[in-house]
Amino acid sequence: MGINPSMRRTWLAHNTGHALDASAHTAFAAEDVRTNIENLVGAVEVPLGIAGPLRVNGTHANGSFYVPFATTEGTLVSTYQYGMRAISEAGGANAYVLGDALDVTPCFILAETRDAIALADWLGVHLAELQAVAAESTAHGRLVDVRPHVFGRRVFAQCVFSTGDAMGMNMVNLAADRICRHVVAAMPCERYYLRCNYSSDKKPAAINLFRLYGKEVAIDLTMPGEVVRTHLGISPRELVDFGATGRLGSMQAGALGTNAHFANGLAAIFIACGQDVAQIVNASIGFLDLELVGDDDLYVAARLPNLVIATVGGGTALPTQRECLALLECVGDGTARRFAEIVGAALVAGELAICAALADGRFIEAHRLNRLHA
Amino acid sequence: MGINPSMRRTWLAHNTGHALDASAHTAFAAEDVRTNIENLVGAVEVPLGIAGPLRVNGTHANGSFYVPFATTEGTLVSTYQYGMRAISEAGGANAYVLGDALDVTPCFILAETRDAIALADWLGVHLAELQAVAAESTAHGRLVDVRPHVFGRRVFAQCVFSTGDAMGMNMVNLAADRICRHVVAAMPCERYYLRCNYSSDKKPAAINLFRLYGKEVAIDLTMPGEVVRTHLGISPRELVDFGATGRLGSMQAGALGTNAHFANGLAAIFIACGQDVAQIVNASIGFLDLELVGDDDLYVAARLPNLVIATVGGGTALPTQRECLALLECVGDGTARRFAEIVGAALVAGELAICAALADGRFIEAHRLNRLHA
Amino acid sequence: MGINPSMRRTWLAHNTGHALDASAHTAFAAEDVRTNIENLVGAVEVPLGIAGPLRVNGTHANGSFYVPFATTEGTLVSTYQYGMRAISEAGGANAYVLGDALDVTPCFILAETRDAIALADWLGVHLAELQAVAAESTAHGRLVDVRPHVFGRRVFAQCVFSTGDAMGMNMVNLAADRICRHVVAAMPCERYYLRCNYSSDKKPAAINLFRLYGKEVAIDLTMPGEVVRTHLGISPRELVDFGATGRLGSMQAGALGTNAHFANGLAAIFIACGQDVAQIVNASIGFLDLELVGDDDLYVAARLPNLVIATVGGGTALPTQRECLALLECVGDGTARRFAEIVGAALVAGELAICAALADGRFIEAHRLNRLHA
Amino acid sequence: MGINPSMRRTWLAHNTGHALDASAHTAFAAEDVRTNIENLVGAVEVPLGIAGPLRVNGTHANGSFYVPFATTEGTLVSTYQYGMRAISEAGGANAYVLGDALDVTPCFILAETRDAIALADWLGVHLAELQAVAAESTAHGRLVDVRPHVFGRRVFAQCVFSTGDAMGMNMVNLAADRICRHVVAAMPCERYYLRCNYSSDKKPAAINLFRLYGKEVAIDLTMPGEVVRTHLGISPRELVDFGATGRLGSMQAGALGTNAHFANGLAAIFIACGQDVAQIVNASIGFLDLELVGDDDLYVAARLPNLVIATVGGGTALPTQRECLALLECVGDGTARRFAEIVGAALVAGELAICAALADGRFIEAHRLNRLHA
Repeated sequence: MGINPSMRRTWLAHNTGHALDASAHTAFAAEDVRTNIENLVGAVEVPLGIAGPLRVNGTHANGSFYVPFATTEGTLVSTYQYGMRAISEAGGANAYVLGDALDVTPCFILAETRDAIALADWLGVHLAELQAVAAESTAHGRLVDVRPHVFGRRVFAQCVFSTGDAMGMNMVNLAADRICRHVVAAMPCERYYLRCNYSSDKKPAAINLFRLYGKEVAIDLTMPGEVVRTHLGISPRELVDFGATGRLGSMQAGALGTNAHFANGLAAIFIACGQDVAQIVNASIGFLDLELVGDDDLYVAARLPNLVIATVGGGTALPTQRECLALLECVGDGTARRFAEIVGAALVAGELAICAALADGRFIEAHRLNRLHA
Repeated sequence: MGINPSMRRTWLAHNTGHALDASAHTAFAAEDVRTNIENLVGAVEVPLGIAGPLRVNGTHANGSFYVPFATTEGTLVSTYQYGMRAISEAGGANAYVLGDALDVTPCFILAETRDAIALADWLGVHLAELQAVAAESTAHGRLVDVRPHVFGRRVFAQCVFSTGDAMGMNMVNLAADRICRHVVAAMPCERYYLRCNYSSDKKPAAINLFRLYGKEVAIDLTMPGEVVRTHLGISPRELVDFGATGRLGSMQAGALGTNAHFANGLAAIFIACGQDVAQIVNASIGFLDLELVGDDDLYVAARLPNLVIATVGGGTALPTQRECLALLECVGDGTARRFAEIVGAALVAGELAICAALADGRFIEAHRLNRLHA
Repeated sequence: MGINPSMRRTWLAHNTGHALDASAHTAFAAEDVRTNIENLVGAVEVPLGIAGPLRVNGTHANGSFYVPFATTEGTLVSTYQYGMRAISEAGGANAYVLGDALDVTPCFILAETRDAIALADWLGVHLAELQAVAAESTAHGRLVDVRPHVFGRRVFAQCVFSTGDAMGMNMVNLAADRICRHVVAAMPCERYYLRCNYSSDKKPAAINLFRLYGKEVAIDLTMPGEVVRTHLGISPRELVDFGATGRLGSMQAGALGTNAHFANGLAAIFIACGQDVAQIVNASIGFLDLELVGDDDLYVAARLPNLVIATVGGGTALPTQRECLALLECVGDGTARRFAEIVGAALVAGELAICAALADGRFIEAHRLNRLHA
Repeated sequence: MGINPSMRRTWLAHNTGHALDASAHTAFAAEDVRTNIENLVGAVEVPLGIAGPLRVNGTHANGSFYVPFATTEGTLVSTYQYGMRAISEAGGANAYVLGDALDVTPCFILAETRDAIALADWLGVHLAELQAVAAESTAHGRLVDVRPHVFGRRVFAQCVFSTGDAMGMNMVNLAADRICRHVVAAMPCERYYLRCNYSSDKKPAAINLFRLYGKEVAIDLTMPGEVVRTHLGISPRELVDFGATGRLGSMQAGALGTNAHFANGLAAIFIACGQDVAQIVNASIGFLDLELVGDDDLYVAARLPNLVIATVGGGTALPTQRECLALLECVGDGTARRFAEIVGAALVAGELAICAALADGRFIEAHRLNRLHA
């Protein structure tokens, strides 16, 4: 019972003078999104476009894919489309999931450094015990390691978990909370906090360069010079030259990672596929490199160390989002790594397209044309 | 004419075996989103919740607001709701737009440093001329400054624009392109690129700490100890203590800025209000500080130097998105700074709520309860 | 035989018109510094001052120490002296060496990511074999771990060593070179580089926050309010308030770590004690925190994760440098950790003194007085 | 009259059992270093070697130079020597001082953001007045700008000065202190601090990428392929390939800037020439880039934005240090920019040599040989 979306809309209209008529339509029932949102009034519609086919030669994703993008930014879908064609013509992008983890870092506060060191040592010795505690709260996640960092009277205890196809944040928070309660029952501790910014969830930080968070995905491909010229409209050498200047730009700007616009593709795919969209902050920290190999070929490589994604839980079960995941055959258990590989390959497509446009001065023209002909 | 969304859906279903039935519904007409997306097939529905009222005492936003959040992450809306209540009970959050700018940095490549210095000097002398060139391509933006950075034979020419209520990215790209063409016609130059990562659009970089990008927003308020205890369930001292540990966590993690979860509120409001969602990467780089003042009061301050937002253009005119902006009285010209102040105040609400939950160990409980009662 | 310093001075005087008369004096014989320098012409004299006694309660350094500083910067020694007195009056600084390691990261370049992953896997499986290879080249260092990072067709293979009392850089370079030759003999590899900037030796990088390099030292002490007032001329609360603003300053500036002037003490002690002075770049990346505890006490904590030091090798055997190390009872094998603890405690003394001076506005006066009375 | 160095040595020997006999020798008189050091006991001798000639084609430094290095690290001088020969054979390195400034950032703390904005505005309006205040305390420095940054109730007021041949730190501290006193007399202010870490003096921070600190120096040269092969023992292409991997290493490590070992040359030259050695922390943040140009030539460029140096004041007047500066014709007024250009060119020599050694696997061999034959 209680207040329903319609009542809330009425009440809002009364208070603000603004009706939410268009937003009232939902393909989902209010009770189906109880765990997704509070104070529900309806839904926002984000335009959905498809780019592809994109050929991916991954361990988990093998085939040609039509990738859904939910966006309101013109030229975005066509940019990815353009790059996907070039990748597919080159035989596809290789994709690998290098690892899979999620960490949360509680902070324990003690009297002085001596005690903090003692607690850190205790954590090292009692890993198996803590793993058992974590296992009580989740069947899917597994506590892999606890890495204590001592600063003054504080122990920042980085608890590293493996997760399955769920994004895993709630799971690891819950398990870490159990671990904390167990620790403070066993060891004297002035106070503790479950999280303290060290794991930098949804926050850009250098730590994201040094530990994987979510899936770490590697993508590469070698694109023959002829394909580059025909499908990206530029020579490999010109593209590599642009890449070198782009890296200098990134370094001068003090960037975390270097890429042209991972964030664009991430935002659009994450919205389409029911992901936790704020995770694009971490996920967009990654590296793209372009190299000339052989006589005239382009070697492209990407490293995405922070791809926090899921194919179950969160918004993945909502009607429109589920359709998008279905398009990629990424519905349900056992598909998260597949999804990660497709996302990685799609991001590389977007990089190639925008770099080619910037390298030969077509960037503005490309934007203008999409405006007119899309 | 040409292919319409329905035909694309049919064709996709044929190719993939997956229909996009739920996604077919759109409150907008295909022709209305021609400049927003390509390869349109429908729309994704993101659940919409409302938090508020939030009392804002800004220069542009003055009053109580109901803030729309589009998200699939449970507890998010209720977290912001909780903080908004506390802020409102304390009399509201002060909000200021400290500045407003957007830059794009073309890179000119010459023969050697001597020539790069000469070009940099030329740019300094010819600012008025370049401003005139920029003015030809846009009536809304204005070239404020060109700041050349010489590295080797390259000039990274940071072109700083003021923008109005549009987000302005297309505008400044276009104006910068004109500037580039003008420069290379006047001065010898081996080649140039319109963008080269230096301005770090949608990419986390240290530069975001040092120049404003979009709107720079400042928020502060002093919350009486009694309000903190009653509405955040904790004492000011305990909250400040947590904040100190959070700052240590951020610094140990090498974070750009320090905050708990700006990104969550940004993602949800940006989706609801038709913003360029990838801009949350930059926008989430900001600072939140908690201080004990007087006998028992909490002083809260936020600095958001990279709020790239708009109330015209992009997705702001789509039916559901426009309704969300209307709720905030932020439709159309002259409302961007108002929108910026509301967003800033909402983010601070989210910070207070999550910090309070983490500081007294209610974080997990809060998440659990929202699950059950939302 | 060959050219001696005197001949070089004569030749230089002939070529430049400038004699090096003062520099001609050396307490060392030319043949004694054959491995320390090339093209020897004499020595530069750096004024040497002593600060202390400094009470250190460490695991390895336990007692009161007179610390040598070689510097030409007025006020530096007296600043450290001032802080040392306060620490000693408070009963001394606790000191801990949390760990001890040094890494060098060769880069192996292969054909594509698939091969890079294979090499990374191979490295993981063959650790014992690589440890044996490393052991052939050094008796003092030990290969602890090899951590491969794959990016595109490259493997950045972080080889982590434990070192003894030598600084260890030559040792680990030599061992890593052997490892590289062993790897490329066993696995196909296009080419490799012994070093590639990843280990950031003598270069400021975020990696220095996340892995210890040299000795990781922790210092802490609780200073009674009365001692703070009497010996630092300020209240604990005022000092902590200054510290909070200093942290905000560091964060706004995008600093790696946060401290006031670790680099000053490091430079002066490193010159005095024959250390590799360029290592202050890494060593100065560290954290200082001030906290109010109990009713009126000051808790001080420092984390120095990158203290690359030695008590044998390098310049430690030169006559004047050896005297400085002797003063600390840090000559020869088994004393490096002791030296690390003393350096750490000395740096904290410098922090307390300068923070106190800045917090109550005595900074300029302190500088002026030292000028007159030193 | 006070304690003299001899008395201090006697007293130390009594207390510690260690005599400072070798350190007792000084080419300077105790009264001559009154402003350089306190608690003087003697001097530390750092071995001095010379590398050169180095051909520099600068605006201020034009000619061939013999550069002094004070170090105890074997191979260092010969490494720079090797690179200097290659540069000189290529016709020399171009050198430019792009700018000259030093800043100190006081922090003013007010009641709330509203007041902080008011103070920031006041500072903008009263620049001329503040310049007059600064002018009273120094004839050499000039207040160029005050850039206020508001965060919460704090104004971080970056006071930018131009300095002459002195390093200028004491000068700008003194002037900033006068400015602070003037400001707080004119405007209500809860408290202020003269420095608050924002200017990151001697501390590695991202701000060092964005504003020049001391001298900003640019170096470049084009080295014909034949010279590269003959004098660096490698082809331009191989060197450029190594550079590309080095940049990837720097970016993966989250480095501020990218170079191989600026810090080594800086430390050795700074000690030799009486500089403030701790300034190598900032000065080592810089960029080195290698590019293939034309058919087979190597283009080398360096950007050193933080070269805090001096040719008067500090340790520059000490006997041995003055001889080193004299060797470069950098004694006294009007020579600081000349010195900066020479230092910049010397650092590039060191980069070329070490990159060549790493690129073709001679690194270990080079170190071994210098050991035996130096």
